[in-house]
Amino acid sequence: MKIDVCLSPTLYPYYNESQDTVIIIDIFRATTTICTMFENGASSVIPVASVEEAKEYKNMGLIVGGERNAKKIDFADFGNSPFDYKREVVMGKDIAFTTTNGTQAVNVAKDCNQLYIGSFSNIDALVNRCIESSNNIVLLCSGWRNKINLEDTLFAGAFVHRLSQKVELKHQSDSVKLALQTWNTAKTNPIEYLKDSDHYKRLVDNGAEGDIEFCFEENTASVVPSYCKHENKLRID
Amino acid sequence: MKIDVCLSPTLYPYYNESQDTVIIIDIFRATTTICTMFENGASSVIPVASVEEAKEYKNMGLIVGGERNAKKIDFADFGNSPFDYKREVVMGKDIAFTTTNGTQAVNVAKDCNQLYIGSFSNIDALVNRCIESSNNIVLLCSGWRNKINLEDTLFAGAFVHRLSQKVELKHQSDSVKLALQTWNTAKTNPIEYLKDSDHYKRLVDNGAEGDIEFCFEENTASVVPSYCKHENKLRID
Repeated sequence: MKIDVCLSPTLYPYYNESQDTVIIIDIFRATTTICTMFENGASSVIPVASVEEAKEYKNMGLIVGGERNAKKIDFADFGNSPFDYKREVVMGKDIAFTTTNGTQAVNVAKDCNQLYIGSFSNIDALVNRCIESSNNIVLLCSGWRNKINLEDTLFAGAFVHRLSQKVELKHQSDSVKLALQTWNTAKTNPIEYLKDSDHYKRLVDNGAEGDIEFCFEENTASVVPSYCKHENKLRID
Repeated sequence: MKIDVCLSPTLYPYYNESQDTVIIIDIFRATTTICTMFENGASSVIPVASVEEAKEYKNMGLIVGGERNAKKIDFADFGNSPFDYKREVVMGKDIAFTTTNGTQAVNVAKDCNQLYIGSFSNIDALVNRCIESSNNIVLLCSGWRNKINLEDTLFAGAFVHRLSQKVELKHQSDSVKLALQTWNTAKTNPIEYLKDSDHYKRLVDNGAEGDIEFCFEENTASVVPSYCKHENKLRID
């Protein structure tokens, strides 16, 4: 099995090969929140690129989750906090979801062979799924407005490390080494490691500090959300 | 003074601001070699994007340095080894130079306010020049065909570290932290650190192993090549 790490959606064309499985990573907070939505019983999540399109889904009566620059979009029902999407709210529902980075990364990669959503919330379920499918993998970090960020990079490293304990991974690219090195530097206390990082500070400034710890809790979800092309929806099997 | 690190030419639009000084980094080997050319007395270096354009300069009688995929271009006088450009060959000469990554990165950034060439060869001269100009700085890593590489990332970290010992640097972005972390991991023995990296192996496979040590020698050059827009040439003052 071969694995690579793409540190920004803008770099995706240089890392993707046609048969790869692509795993979208947006630790703060979109992919953590999507896993929580499904764990709490959501039927599907529609990844929406623009605020205008999200408004259309709102007018159609769907639940809309929307965030830009770490703030809830005014007309949205909820923002980008995993705590917004409680079981009683999302059970059996379709949710239209648009965020600054994570849902954009889904849109960049949605023509790939197989797309999964990854976070610490579902890390072991995702590792097991990847071993079952035995495809080559690209870990696509959402970053921040196409810039590289530390929290997605360190998750990529954590995932490679976890997977490498179960299967043999071929050749480590420079990006994989960078991600593993980041995880090795951060792993004893990832939250402390990130305290001075760009998006950590942005979350604190926007009153979302309470979400941070949850974003590093492992295996709070047993789901692997995957993208279904003909429906343009994320679903679980 | 503010400094940022851009890990691939493709990401440059997200990191550049109009008044920034941009430093092009291609440790293996273009920016190391350009510094050597000027240290050995070259009059100017013309950064050439395509092989076809390089051929035109050859027909005009210029010395042509050309490399693709770590190999010398067949019609070129020399390849991308710093050892090719000896004093007796380059003194007083204009050199047309095209490489897989480094000269492409120059072309991506050439509309910036001020463009410098950086390498371990001229690290202290460059630090001093940056302190004199006191502009904000973007370190632009050339990478490998738009992918991120370790050797340019670790030089970016080394440069930030060196500069931070002399001036106060404002806010460290996530990319700056990633570069510093890479330098901190690699600094006791950068060549050993890189031995399993993508381009190190490529250089060995192409018989260019002998260049590697030189690419990590500090201050073999006292020059700061800079880009002159109206001439489309790199020069030293």
